[in-house]
Amino acid sequence: MSRLEEKTIRSEKLFSGKVISLYLEDVELPNGKEAKREIIKHPGAVAILAITDENKIVMVEQFRKALDRTIVEIPAGKLEKGEEPAACARRELEEETGYECGSLELLNSFYTSPGFSDEIVHVYIARGLVKKENSAPLDEDEFIDLEELTLEEAIRYIKDQKIFDAKTVFAVQYMQLQEVLAKK
Amino acid sequence: MSRLEEKTIRSEKLFSGKVISLYLEDVELPNGKEAKREIIKHPGAVAILAITDENKIVMVEQFRKALDRTIVEIPAGKLEKGEEPAACARRELEEETGYECGSLELLNSFYTSPGFSDEIVHVYIARGLVKKENSAPLDEDEFIDLEELTLEEAIRYIKDQKIFDAKTVFAVQYMQLQEVLAKK
Repeated sequence: MSRLEEKTIRSEKLFSGKVISLYLEDVELPNGKEAKREIIKHPGAVAILAITDENKIVMVEQFRKALDRTIVEIPAGKLEKGEEPAACARRELEEETGYECGSLELLNSFYTSPGFSDEIVHVYIARGLVKKENSAPLDEDEFIDLEELTLEEAIRYIKDQKIFDAKTVFAVQYMQLQEVLAKK
Repeated sequence: MSRLEEKTIRSEKLFSGKVISLYLEDVELPNGKEAKREIIKHPGAVAILAITDENKIVMVEQFRKALDRTIVEIPAGKLEKGEEPAACARRELEEETGYECGSLELLNSFYTSPGFSDEIVHVYIARGLVKKENSAPLDEDEFIDLEELTLEEAIRYIKDQKIFDAKTVFAVQYMQLQEVLAKK
C-alpha cells in the first residue's frame, strides 16, 4: 500500500441509473483515521476533434440539462458496454454529425473530475471527413444543431462562453498549438 | 424556450452529500416526449497553474479514491459556500503547497462533465510564489506530496499517464502554447 493510499472499509451503492451510479465509501486514511468518499461511476466517453477539408472544426450545439443551458461542444458520447473507444468515436461522429472519417487518431485520454468521478474521456482527432447519405440516427432523446467553426471562431466562442467544457477547450487549444507549431 | 431546450417536469433529490448531490429529473424533450436525466450538483472548484521563479510547475500528487490510484495534478479544491473563486485559489494554493502568490490571473473556466454534472473549474495562473513559514493546514482528510516539474517533465508525465486529468492536461498544454508563442 502506497504512503498516500486510502483503503476501502465499506462501499455502498446508493443509486444505479442509466448513465451513472453513486457509491458512498468509508475509507481508512494514511494516518489510520476514517473518512467518507462520495463516488460517481461512469462508463467513460469519447470526444472527437473532427477537422473538415476546409480546416474547420465540426461542433454540435446541444442543451445540457445539468447546466440548464445550451453549449457548443465537439461531438462526444458514452461508451456502450464492451465497446472499443475508437469504434465508439466513429459511431458517435456519424450519429451526431453524419460524417464518416478517413483517419482517426487518439490525442489524449483524461479523467474529467477525479475528485468524485471515474469518468474518463478519450479525445480523438478525425480527418478525411465524408458526409454519409444515410447516416445512423441520433439517440431518441438527443437534439443537436451542427456548426463548423474556424479556429478563430472557436477561440471567440471560448471567450464568449458558448464553448464552455473541458474536452472542447482542450481540443481547441490543441488546434491552436498545432497551428502555431506549423507556422514556426 | 429555445428549440433545443428541455423543460423540467419533475426534479427529485435522491442524495445530498458532503460534496455532491444527486437529482433525478423528468424532462420534456423538444419533440414533446419525455426522458429522464441523472444530474450531479457540485459547488464548483478552482485549480492553480502555479509557476515558480525557475519556471517550474507546482504539482501535487494525491490518491484519488474515485480512480483507486495516485495521480499528479495542479493544486485544486472546492469552493466554500459564498467564496470568491480567486480567494479560493489563493487559499487552496497555500493549503496544498505552502506558497503565497504575487499575481493571480484567471485563464479559463470550464464545465468538466456537462453530460451529467454542473461542476465548473476556474483555472488560474499564479506567479511570484513565496513559501510561507506557517502556512494554512491541509484538510484533515487530505494527504499530498509536492513536486515541481519542468514543462518537459510535465509533458512526459502526461504521456506516462501520471498526469491524467482534464484541468492539468489543459494547464500543461497552455504552458506549452505560451512557450511556443514566446519563441516565435
